[in-house]
This record gives sequence, structure tokens and C-alpha cells, in this order.
Amino acid sequence: MSYQQIEGGVCAAQGFCAASCEANIKYENRTDMAMVFSQTPCVSAGTFTTNVVKAACVQWDQKLVSSGDPIHAVVINSGIANACTGQEGFDACEATAKAVEAQLQVPYTSVAVASTGVIGMQLPVAKLVSGVQKMSTGLSDSNQAGTDASKAIMTTDTVNKEIAVTFTIGGKQVVLGGMSKGSGMIHPNMCTMLAFLTSDIAIEKSLLQQAVSEVVADTFNMITVDGDTSTNDTLLLLANGLAGNPCITEADTDYETFKEALFYVCRFLARKMASDGEGATKLFEAKVVNAKSKEDARILSRAIVGSNLSKAAIYGCDANFGRFLCAMGYSGAKFDQNDVELFFESKNGRMMVFSKGVPLAFDEDRALEIMKADEVTVYVDMHEGDAQATAWGCDLTYDYVKINADYRS
Amino acid sequence: MSYQQIEGGVCAAQGFCAASCEANIKYENRTDMAMVFSQTPCVSAGTFTTNVVKAACVQWDQKLVSSGDPIHAVVINSGIANACTGQEGFDACEATAKAVEAQLQVPYTSVAVASTGVIGMQLPVAKLVSGVQKMSTGLSDSNQAGTDASKAIMTTDTVNKEIAVTFTIGGKQVVLGGMSKGSGMIHPNMCTMLAFLTSDIAIEKSLLQQAVSEVVADTFNMITVDGDTSTNDTLLLLANGLAGNPCITEADTDYETFKEALFYVCRFLARKMASDGEGATKLFEAKVVNAKSKEDARILSRAIVGSNLSKAAIYGCDANFGRFLCAMGYSGAKFDQNDVELFFESKNGRMMVFSKGVPLAFDEDRALEIMKADEVTVYVDMHEGDAQATAWGCDLTYDYVKINADYRS
Repeated sequence: MSYQQIEGGVCAAQGFCAASCEANIKYENRTDMAMVFSQTPCVSAGTFTTNVVKAACVQWDQKLVSSGDPIHAVVINSGIANACTGQEGFDACEATAKAVEAQLQVPYTSVAVASTGVIGMQLPVAKLVSGVQKMSTGLSDSNQAGTDASKAIMTTDTVNKEIAVTFTIGGKQVVLGGMSKGSGMIHPNMCTMLAFLTSDIAIEKSLLQQAVSEVVADTFNMITVDGDTSTNDTLLLLANGLAGNPCITEADTDYETFKEALFYVCRFLARKMASDGEGATKLFEAKVVNAKSKEDARILSRAIVGSNLSKAAIYGCDANFGRFLCAMGYSGAKFDQNDVELFFESKNGRMMVFSKGVPLAFDEDRALEIMKADEVTVYVDMHEGDAQATAWGCDLTYDYVKINADYRS
Repeated sequence: MSYQQIEGGVCAAQGFCAASCEANIKYENRTDMAMVFSQTPCVSAGTFTTNVVKAACVQWDQKLVSSGDPIHAVVINSGIANACTGQEGFDACEATAKAVEAQLQVPYTSVAVASTGVIGMQLPVAKLVSGVQKMSTGLSDSNQAGTDASKAIMTTDTVNKEIAVTFTIGGKQVVLGGMSKGSGMIHPNMCTMLAFLTSDIAIEKSLLQQAVSEVVADTFNMITVDGDTSTNDTLLLLANGLAGNPCITEADTDYETFKEALFYVCRFLARKMASDGEGATKLFEAKVVNAKSKEDARILSRAIVGSNLSKAAIYGCDANFGRFLCAMGYSGAKFDQNDVELFFESKNGRMMVFSKGVPLAFDEDRALEIMKADEVTVYVDMHEGDAQATAWGCDLTYDYVKINADYRS
């Protein structure tokens, strides 16, 4: 392990500052806008929702990231998603970016925007612009500013999510930090709901994108809360190069060091999003080992944590293993049930319940003890190859239904 | 409309009788076994789960139906699914079929078996055999016997599901009846949980299968309760030919008459399963019209009724149309959101809420009135072609979670 966790989030890396404010976009008496800013231009990498119905801000950012132009700022609002909003939605993105240009003298084409909240509602542009004005005068590089930003982007999240790590490249101390938010409509496909990572590393854009794409596939893309892939999923990583390390230009050991740290950060945020899924009381992990292929292992582990019936069983602390096997069966992966072993594990212990096509007799009290932990793992040995994958989700509870039966009103 | 609905279910057609009994397989103080029997040999057609983890009974029936041998009986139990049970599971199927042979003098290779209930638990064979013995002496062709059978196969269903229709072929009165059960782990893929149809029609086996496959694609395969495709999905249609119509040997107008009646029966049972989904308070219908292709229309309508967030909005009577558009967006179908019109409709009215990429202002009180009905339709006009499809589901409620958090215990 070549990295070390440190205090902070998006402001941990050199040259990044943040601000947040109460813009009253939809929520009242809480912050609902955030900005992350780097005076030094950043190379960027991003992954975005694969939903055909993409929010206006997603389309804005995709264009920005693929242009290769440097990025200076990201402006985020919670409450309204700016999805299904037609031309008026694009106009809101542009007005926001132009407000940053007017305040901070960076081109509006270097400003990314992101939104999360209700779909099919127009953003109040005057409030966005006035929010940008307020935030531009309140930018700070303190860790508190980063924490405040991570709180301003929450919707139904119950905790804010941030992390930072440091590692050494070419003798220079490099920092990578980030924040993300969940917590419903979470079933990322190429990316998660919203995650913003900042680093002072010097790295070529193409390698930055490569690292992000590879790491997202095993972290954010392996979580699910409700099977609903959002219209707004966005992950952005900005790197301003201020650490002064020799710029990473090939996939060498320095690149691997960075990727390892990036994996740790993304896995941390992804797990935190899963465990803070809407209404969730537990983190529900599925680990599939010895599968025929990596793709099979991913499909199988995602199917297990994605099944409503499995999730309800986890909520009820019910070792009803048939539901997990059923989910594997309809996942699309081919396998022979007579090869499979299935275990439940948690900090309270480990127990095999199914072996080679046959259910095992097991102690229900012991099973209950294992299932009662706040992180429960279903561990499946396929005995078919050597590929493995882990997926994360959460339990399905009354509160999930409650939150979503009256979310809009 | 060339058919007419009549009283009854699986016993409505000539030559079919049924029985049920309390076998105490898992449930107590209720019937939990049923048998449908025809002294005259039947041609059969069936569709089965596509889950890789198939229950022993599914594998038994698939072999039977594909052999082309005549079928005389189906024995069904509720409480235990006989899935993930290894060789012992197959032995239970054989023992059940052999018990029928011993009692009713038909070859055990003409006996289909079906199970529904907990996965990963062995069936008590002695109880099954004794159940068959009891039922063999209690067979009756009364409608009451059919109704009792439809009740014995229920698990978390709150109502039994049966129907019968009559129509005329070659001057002969033909009857088609059936029963089915839900109500969780319902996301049929090539077939539903359990449905048994009986008819006295004379028809060639290949045409019977063709009709069943075509009709199932637009009925049972278009419903979902929770996105979980069961290990046990089975639909069987037995036809004994006693109506005396000239045997249907080609896809002529007689075949179409039969298919129309079959569609009506399957649609009735499928809708009834959806509206009786675990914990459901409403039937939730999605009708997609003017899509590019039939396949697209199916994918889109299924995605709408399959989304947890859409289902929770339906429960909350919340006209939160963005969730439905979001579900369409991640369904896998390609389309342009700027072509789409979306309406809510019910017996209380109809309202357009989204048009050509833009949300419309609408009266929330009026929307609530429409959403409060016990059957709510999301109607989507794609403006891209002329294909259409309808899918059925139900709302996601506290009770769904409650039922499934402690189903096994």
C-alpha cells in the first residue's frame, strides 16, 4: 500500500478551493449549491450516465471533458436535476458557467456544471447566478470548505461523503481528494450519481481518463441502491499538476501508484454511497470468486445485491439463500448450480449454507447472529475459474418506500 | 370478439377434473396441494423460466413437454419450491408422479409436477405421496373443485386467480380454462410463476405450442412484480380434444379464434397476478405506442413498470413523471427524448405532463385525482414508428418489504 489516508476532501490537494451557499433552489434553510475551483487550469477525466435520457448538465460536461480544454471550476446544485428540460435546461448550464466567468475571470468553457434532484423541473436561473456570485467571494482552501461543499450536494443522503489520500511520485508528495453523493436512483452504469475528485498530480489527460475508466468499473459501477440508472450520473476528476511530480506520460509504476490510490478513494466513496442508500440500515456486499470470467463475476455479484428479494431478506436478517441463487440464475451468466458454494459472512462469523447443488442444514440462531451485523457479505465460490468481483448495495426497507412515495412533494 | 367468458377455471373444459388437500408440506391449516387430471390423454404446450437455476420440477416438466408424450395430470404443491435441491429434488418429482401412476393407472411419464415456495429446502416426499393418495379419491369436475385447486396453489397471493371462456370451432363448442398464482419473485421471462390452462380443443401439438409462445410474449412476459425471475416459472396448457372440433392442423381462422381466446385468458390472469403483487395496492400499467419496433415498445413499457422509483411514485400517487422517463432512458432502447409525449390516465381522467422534451405545467390536484385510482396507466407516445406494447406491474409498498423481510420464517 503506497498511499495514506489524510484529512479532507476536495480541498485537500494543492490549489483547490471550494464554497457553498443557500441558493433556495428547491430546499430551504440549507445549503444547496457548491463550487470547486482551481486557479491553475486542470486536465480532466470523467465518466457519465449511459441513460439515453441525459440531463442537460451531463451533456454540457461530456462536451467539455471530451474537448480536451482545461477546466477551472465545477458548479453543483441539489434539489433539481435539470433533466428532461429541453433548450431551457442548456441555457441554465450556460448562464451558470458565464456567471463564473464574470466573477472569476476564467472562460465559461472551462466551467463544468452538475445537478441532482427532481427530474422534469426547470432550474431558477436567477438563483443560480446569484449563488455563483455569493460563492465566488467565499472560496476557501480549508478542509472545512470541502466538507461544506460535500454537504451542499446531498439530497436524500443522510451523511456527507468525502475522503483524501496522499502518495509519493518522483519524490513529490501528491494528494487526491474527493466527494460524492447518493442516495436513490443509484445503479451507476459507467459512473455514479455525482462524484468530484481533485488532485494536484501532473498526468497526461489520456492516462487520467484511462485510470478513471478502469477504476470506476470496479468501484462506482459495482454499486446499486435501487436498480435505477440516473439521468445525471457524473464523475469528474480534475488534476492541476501543482504537486510538481514529473508528469505521468505512460502506464508505468508511477501510474500504478496513482491508480492504487484512486481505487482506494473510489471504493471508499462507492461503499459509503451504498451503505447510505435511501432507507438503508445495512451495507450488503456480494463477493463472487473463482468465476469463469471477470464479466461473469461482475454480473453475478451485481445481480445478488440488485435483487429486491435479496435486499428484503438482508433487511429481515433472513438467511434465505435461495433468493441469492435465484438472482444469480437470472443474471444472464451461465453456470452450473452443482458447482456453487454459498456462504454468509460478517464481523460476527462465517457460515456455508449451500454446497454443490444441495442446501446444507445450518444453525438458524448462528445465521441470525451473522446477518445482524451492519455489513453483511454473501460470498459465492463458483468453482469454475479464477475471476472475481465484488458488488455493494443495501437492504430494502420500509423507509426506502416512504422516501420515494413522497419524494417530490 | 369470438369468445365469451363463462364460470369456472381448470375444470370448465370437458374431461378435466381437479382435487386439492391439506398435505402440511410447509403451511398448516390450509390446502397446499392440488391436482388437475384428464382421463383422456392431452397434448401439451408449455413455457418455462429462463433462470439458469431451474427448479427440479421445471426440468421434469420441460422434458415431459418436449418428449411429445401425452400428459394426464399435473400435481402442484405450495410452500416449498423444490429448487436448489440436487438429486433429492428430482427423486421427489419422480415419487410424486409414481404415486399418481399407482392411484390412477396412468404412466408416471404422463404426470407433470410443479412447486412454489421457499427455495433451497427439500420436499417431504411421504407427505406428497399421501397427498396424491387423498386427492386421487377426491377428484371432481365441478367448478368448485377447480376453484379449490386455484386456492391450494397460492403462497403470498391474496386472491385466487381463475377464468374460463368458450368459443366455437367447426360448429363445436370449445372451452378453455385456467388458473395461476403470483405473487412475489415475479418477472417472468418466457413464462410466469405458475399457470395451468386446460381445454377440450383438438389441436396439433406444434400449433398449440406456437399459440402459447406467441400469447405468453404479450401477456405473462409483460408483467413484473419485483424484477426477480423465479426458478419455478411454469405455464402448462393441456388439451384433450373432447370438444370434438375438427383438429386444428394449420394456422387458419380456427387457430386465430383459439389464439384470441387464449390471449384473453392469459391477459386476464397476467393482469390479475400483477395487481395482486406482493404488498400491492394498485395495478400499474404502461402503454407505449408509436415506437420504432415491437421489441422497443416491450423494453420501454417493461422498464417503466419495473422501476422501483416509478413503483414507489405510483404508491404515493405522485405524478413524478421524470422517474418514468428515467426508466425508459436506461431500458436499453434508443430514442430521442424530444420526440416523447407522456400522459397519466385512469378511470378518473387523462393528462399530458411531458411533451417533446419539455415538462408541462399541470394541475397537481387533478393529477392526484387521476393517480388515486386503483388502476393507473402511464401512456407514452414515442412518435417514432407504429409499434406498441403494454406491460403490467404494481406499486412498491411497505407491505412488499414486510412480506419479504420475514417470508421464510
